[in-house]
Amino acid sequence: MDKSEIPSALEIGQALRQWLPESAILTTPESKRPYETDGLSAYRQMPYVVVLPATEKEVQAVLRYCHALRIPVVARGAGTGLSGGALPHESGVLLSLARLKNILQVDPLARTVRVQPGVRNLAITQAVDAHGLFYAPDPSSQIACSIGGNVAENSGGVHCLKYGLTLHNILRLRILTITGEVVEIGSEAPDSAGFDFMALLTGSEGLLAIVTEVTVKVIPKPMVSKVIMASFEMVEKAGDAVACMIAAGIIPAGLEMMDSLATRAAEDFVHAGYPVEAAAVLLCESDGMPEVVEDELARMKTILEENGATEIRVARDEAERLRFWAGRKAAFPAVGRLAPDYYCIDGTIPRRRLGEVLRQIADWSLEYGLEVANVFHAGDGNLHPLILYDAGVPGEFHKTEELAGRILELCVEVGGTITGEHGVGVEKINQMCVQFGLNEITVFHGIKAAFDPEGLLNPGKAIPTLQRCAEGGRMHVHHNQLPHPELSRF
Amino acid sequence: MDKSEIPSALEIGQALRQWLPESAILTTPESKRPYETDGLSAYRQMPYVVVLPATEKEVQAVLRYCHALRIPVVARGAGTGLSGGALPHESGVLLSLARLKNILQVDPLARTVRVQPGVRNLAITQAVDAHGLFYAPDPSSQIACSIGGNVAENSGGVHCLKYGLTLHNILRLRILTITGEVVEIGSEAPDSAGFDFMALLTGSEGLLAIVTEVTVKVIPKPMVSKVIMASFEMVEKAGDAVACMIAAGIIPAGLEMMDSLATRAAEDFVHAGYPVEAAAVLLCESDGMPEVVEDELARMKTILEENGATEIRVARDEAERLRFWAGRKAAFPAVGRLAPDYYCIDGTIPRRRLGEVLRQIADWSLEYGLEVANVFHAGDGNLHPLILYDAGVPGEFHKTEELAGRILELCVEVGGTITGEHGVGVEKINQMCVQFGLNEITVFHGIKAAFDPEGLLNPGKAIPTLQRCAEGGRMHVHHNQLPHPELSRF
Repeated sequence: MDKSEIPSALEIGQALRQWLPESAILTTPESKRPYETDGLSAYRQMPYVVVLPATEKEVQAVLRYCHALRIPVVARGAGTGLSGGALPHESGVLLSLARLKNILQVDPLARTVRVQPGVRNLAITQAVDAHGLFYAPDPSSQIACSIGGNVAENSGGVHCLKYGLTLHNILRLRILTITGEVVEIGSEAPDSAGFDFMALLTGSEGLLAIVTEVTVKVIPKPMVSKVIMASFEMVEKAGDAVACMIAAGIIPAGLEMMDSLATRAAEDFVHAGYPVEAAAVLLCESDGMPEVVEDELARMKTILEENGATEIRVARDEAERLRFWAGRKAAFPAVGRLAPDYYCIDGTIPRRRLGEVLRQIADWSLEYGLEVANVFHAGDGNLHPLILYDAGVPGEFHKTEELAGRILELCVEVGGTITGEHGVGVEKINQMCVQFGLNEITVFHGIKAAFDPEGLLNPGKAIPTLQRCAEGGRMHVHHNQLPHPELSRF
Repeated sequence: MDKSEIPSALEIGQALRQWLPESAILTTPESKRPYETDGLSAYRQMPYVVVLPATEKEVQAVLRYCHALRIPVVARGAGTGLSGGALPHESGVLLSLARLKNILQVDPLARTVRVQPGVRNLAITQAVDAHGLFYAPDPSSQIACSIGGNVAENSGGVHCLKYGLTLHNILRLRILTITGEVVEIGSEAPDSAGFDFMALLTGSEGLLAIVTEVTVKVIPKPMVSKVIMASFEMVEKAGDAVACMIAAGIIPAGLEMMDSLATRAAEDFVHAGYPVEAAAVLLCESDGMPEVVEDELARMKTILEENGATEIRVARDEAERLRFWAGRKAAFPAVGRLAPDYYCIDGTIPRRRLGEVLRQIADWSLEYGLEVANVFHAGDGNLHPLILYDAGVPGEFHKTEELAGRILELCVEVGGTITGEHGVGVEKINQMCVQFGLNEITVFHGIKAAFDPEGLLNPGKAIPTLQRCAEGGRMHVHHNQLPHPELSRF
């Protein structure tokens, strides 16, 4: 994109006033500043223009205008994303969907809710609470994050092991293409005709289309939820307990792990009642009918004992259960109090490789002189190492980024992936070259071009150019693969 | 495609002998005849050339050759598909994957099995049976159908309500693009980086790529499985019972319904012990831990009684349970004995619309003078009306096709879809224009072009041209939609 072809921010603002009210167009530095970063605050970029449409028609007008003038468009939900997916483009429109926040339809009988993208995750559950229903995906940011962002990132949460990711809890999407066309996808049937592009859209990080409506499934609240907290003297033993539990066919409603540093930080912050002397703490939740929960808790306890848990406590009541979870859900900000800055990593690994990966992270932590706290969605092998650093110390952020990159590459090496639930965004774009070979990345570009041939939607995010991979020297070429003949296109 | 540019069948056969043994290339009418139809035998086309590669390298050679010469390629698994997806192309290569039938790796600890596409569905379960595991998707054709075909159609089965479709039971795919590039997709993590093109490939009916390896999940066999058979004097009451069961939060391992004609046909054929005087029969299965199953059966029985079931029988033992299911699984061939030919329809509807849809089908059955037997995956609203006809009576197949089309369009009208699990193939291609608007079909074409710009993979199937929709006068244009500017491309 030749920046010189793009109209000035003021010209864009002026033009958009044909379709949007003045209050929906931000062009001054003070008004734009809140949008210069998302949850990955290490990356900042002052937006060129921010627009805040309140209706689908206004979104459509913005897209048609931007498409006609080849202006990049970056969609933003609540800005809680952790991979910089909503980082503004230096000469594009930042399209906030926060004002599309109506709950359009609640159907308790069909157990569906149709909402606009700016509706908060938790607001969906609140809207159906009186019917005894809830919306299952529960990212830690659920008070703030919006469903449009959840679709863009295919968000999970502590309960996704049992209840699935966003994709598994939505039925229909209404989207606008970059040319402003309305496309409706999905159905209430278990499968739909044609290609499964609801799955393709979900987790596409704003690169393919703009979501304007989401129909989600809501499900009955479990009759009972109980949680066990177990302590271990060695992280490896906690990891073994997790592996045994899954191998025994138990699907916990939540299965979370914290190492010593994370446990102590969370305890200091929210006084959850965690054993601060433990090397690792596991939280294991069971929900469902009372008989099933009792049976599952008994089986969990046996496995925890067999794997050397030093303390096993079932939350005595709902208040204690919520306290146990509050500690886990606040683990990131709690760790954040230990140092001026922290950097959250989001790799996944096969559960059986947990011990060795943690040992390697500990070795590197010493080598780099950077403390690392570990929080995991243990049940699905999703690690969140938190590197503590001080951005005020020259070179420390650079060291942190390097360590983070090595940890992600280790995840790929042991058979895992570079992102469990936070997306690639700007943060992990180099590691995409490690995760995938050139054929896979070529296919990604082909799909991108099918939706957005000019590359206007969220450029520079999620999918690296092949040139970037080649220059980084990281491209992983599978055995038997020759460069794709159309490689030069990208 | 100008047919005159394509080499003769003999020339193709000659050329492919560079890479494949002579026994893998069929060019004579006698040898090709078994491939002229799949499970939808109303459509027949003698193949131009049939190739039977035995290794991925051979498949790659065929694809590279066909791509270079712009020869269409139709992939075929076991040929059990019911929508004509494997119908040969009159001047293309029919690519049978039946000889790629090795089970490459069984990992009972990680609970995965890596197989070639020609491995039969049931062979996977047999390979892990000794470990107490099974592969959940169970199409009625599971003795014969192959996993590659299951991926192409995203197959379900009577247990998919609880255990999901093929997509939900696979972890990785290894595919070849039309240019012969190897692409590996999926992971063992709950989500993977980049676009979700494993979901896109699954159910893509051979239009995007050729699958050469599938890694599936296998799961522990349930401790107990029990089935209830319930009889009703009215089909609507059986439908209400199904709706109540789902509304009560029960997820049966199977929930199947047959109308009177289907029940009697199945009983005559396999002597399952069905009540032949019933207007409808429901089979409701529960599986899991003994306590859970007992509890669930009790709740199911209460709901069945409340909805007026005239007889409720729990299968006394495993032999009777299997007999009950044998009747259902043999329902298609059983109905097939009632008339020279039958035509199976595969629409889905919202469960609450069951009664009215059945009444309309009964009215049309009288109007057309064609008997219709109804078999359903009731739990997920997937109908299989079977139209009985005699292809020997002039005009009767045409009437049957017309009735089938009207039933599918009714499914869309009440909020359902034109295919639950059998795919679109050649059979439902006109109904795609009813199901989708031009924007959706334009996106389908864009995705197709990203993988196969020359349109060589399974041309004429699954995705109609916009011209076809426009000419058929069926195109459903959504409110607010204007033709896509790039429409003329297709």
